[in-house]
Amino acid sequence: VLGSGGGGRVDVGLMVAGNALAKHGPVKLLDPDELDELDPDGLVLPLASMGAPTVHLEQFSSGDEPKLIRDEVERALGKRVVAVMSTEIGGTNGVEPVAHAAQLGLPLLDADGMGRAFPEVHQVSMHVAGLKVGIVVAADVAGNVVTIWPKEARWAEHLTRLVCVAMGSVALTTDHIMRVAEVSGAVVPRTVSHALSIGAAITGDERGRVSELVTALDGYRLLTGKIVDVERITAGGFARGAVLIEGMGEDRDRLLRVEFQNENLVAVEDGVVLVTVPDLITVVDAQTADAVPCELLRYGQRVTVVVAPCHGIWRTDAGLAVVGPRAFGYDCDYVPVEERLGDKRDADQGGPP
Amino acid sequence: VLGSGGGGRVDVGLMVAGNALAKHGPVKLLDPDELDELDPDGLVLPLASMGAPTVHLEQFSSGDEPKLIRDEVERALGKRVVAVMSTEIGGTNGVEPVAHAAQLGLPLLDADGMGRAFPEVHQVSMHVAGLKVGIVVAADVAGNVVTIWPKEARWAEHLTRLVCVAMGSVALTTDHIMRVAEVSGAVVPRTVSHALSIGAAITGDERGRVSELVTALDGYRLLTGKIVDVERITAGGFARGAVLIEGMGEDRDRLLRVEFQNENLVAVEDGVVLVTVPDLITVVDAQTADAVPCELLRYGQRVTVVVAPCHGIWRTDAGLAVVGPRAFGYDCDYVPVEERLGDKRDADQGGPP
Repeated sequence: VLGSGGGGRVDVGLMVAGNALAKHGPVKLLDPDELDELDPDGLVLPLASMGAPTVHLEQFSSGDEPKLIRDEVERALGKRVVAVMSTEIGGTNGVEPVAHAAQLGLPLLDADGMGRAFPEVHQVSMHVAGLKVGIVVAADVAGNVVTIWPKEARWAEHLTRLVCVAMGSVALTTDHIMRVAEVSGAVVPRTVSHALSIGAAITGDERGRVSELVTALDGYRLLTGKIVDVERITAGGFARGAVLIEGMGEDRDRLLRVEFQNENLVAVEDGVVLVTVPDLITVVDAQTADAVPCELLRYGQRVTVVVAPCHGIWRTDAGLAVVGPRAFGYDCDYVPVEERLGDKRDADQGGPP
Repeated sequence: VLGSGGGGRVDVGLMVAGNALAKHGPVKLLDPDELDELDPDGLVLPLASMGAPTVHLEQFSSGDEPKLIRDEVERALGKRVVAVMSTEIGGTNGVEPVAHAAQLGLPLLDADGMGRAFPEVHQVSMHVAGLKVGIVVAADVAGNVVTIWPKEARWAEHLTRLVCVAMGSVALTTDHIMRVAEVSGAVVPRTVSHALSIGAAITGDERGRVSELVTALDGYRLLTGKIVDVERITAGGFARGAVLIEGMGEDRDRLLRVEFQNENLVAVEDGVVLVTVPDLITVVDAQTADAVPCELLRYGQRVTVVVAPCHGIWRTDAGLAVVGPRAFGYDCDYVPVEERLGDKRDADQGGPP
């Protein structure tokens, strides 16, 4: 759900995390308020799989990658890693760090760098908070390790992307490594707990799940309908496209277009932009409320489009500069989803679709 | 000449070296026998520009790359760099390390890792001698530094190649970094002196230069003639092709085909393979004896094809495995140039063409 259409499928990550927990035992989820229990000079290691989700479905990791990265980070920076964090909470990257923490015997920080999913290295809260990208370390299933000392943030994305391609289009990566003392204000807090509460909301009785989800997200149900068209092109290394959803029931005679680039970016109705990135736009199954990632959108699916506010850090000028609609090529200003839809919430949230 | 058609044009390297010598003062050329003057645990840093020679003609280095690499190597390996070496003596890579040594204030070892030019990372004498590729460090004009810890040698080539592409297709790189105590037997000795003696041989009176060159190389004049055809394709990141040379004068009625992949690989006459890689096949101007790199071969040029024995390390089974004709896709065995042409030497070396 938090992947907003991107971040890869969760099921592979769930298997990886389950296996690691069975082998290494439980992982401590560390609340951001508990950080003062750790050495302030210790390192928090944000981890994420980079590359093509389609490849990652077939090429599993060896399980050695977290250790290879940890060892190289400690060697390169001369400090100890004391906690792991998910770089992005959306998709498989929100789940796999549980495995990494288990393998390393380290706590998992209840936070991430996005509060959702974004495609590029610099699109993290740490960047908006003014922290440097520092080094990027990538490790692959073959045991190769590459350390990148980029001159500036945009070089980090460019160099890491091609290293990832050379590694077979899947690599475990870390960037924006923080000292414990730098974490406060630089991460999106308690997103692991948030993901767990979303999971709890959509695992009860099927009736009412979408409503429960909207409540858990403090969001809005935008429209329920049938997918009548999906466009997809692969351009510039990304999956770009759009999905057209024809309203059903109380939404009949409405037509919503959601455009995506790995993640859902904008929702448009009758030529009017309703919601844009960085707010969350998630397409879910109209019955089960399970999220449908962009790559699995298909003609005929009955879906509900759910939208929700992003974390406040993305609404600052610095945040919008890296993930606002213009950062993705849309010539429109960002308007918070509550401002556009605030009056519709009560009416739409009444009952199940 | 030693580039055997590859290694890039020398003129840019000469300018870079000249500027660095003017700015930093002379560089000590260190004979391999003088290595025992250095800390046996110190590091010898082989340096080479990687990428597309055509790009390197337009994108000069910043001059900071050697220092960025030296600092990262010392940090990563925890030992001091005490000397610089050219990874390949052929082409611009034989000359630019003079600049790198000047910038670092270090001696330049009178040796290299090829005794000629080869296209790939593992095609070095250090690899044949059983030394590990170790780390690869690449630095670019923008100030980015990437350190690669490859699992094995073929990964080093693959990862470094794409890092080089990400850096704009030109990067300064080091690999097969040696401790001083490991150098003996792992490098091709005195190739800088050899290059200087070749230069001296072809800077005198134009008459007889080709003969002087053949003598300096301890090689053979294969044929003198006119280029009547050049084929070129760019495939797999390499410049592949062939040149057809029609004999003139005493070589009239002969037709020689030289095939290349960045470097000249085989010389064929009447369907008979005369000379193959790793022996040197160099096309030179028939009058001036200046080497003509593969990318500058043109219809109508009057040229002489000069061939010479490679260093003995390439004639071992381990050497031929990485640079023999089969390593480049030719289904033929390597026969040393002296065995094929030994009886022709006296007749052909008599006088100027």
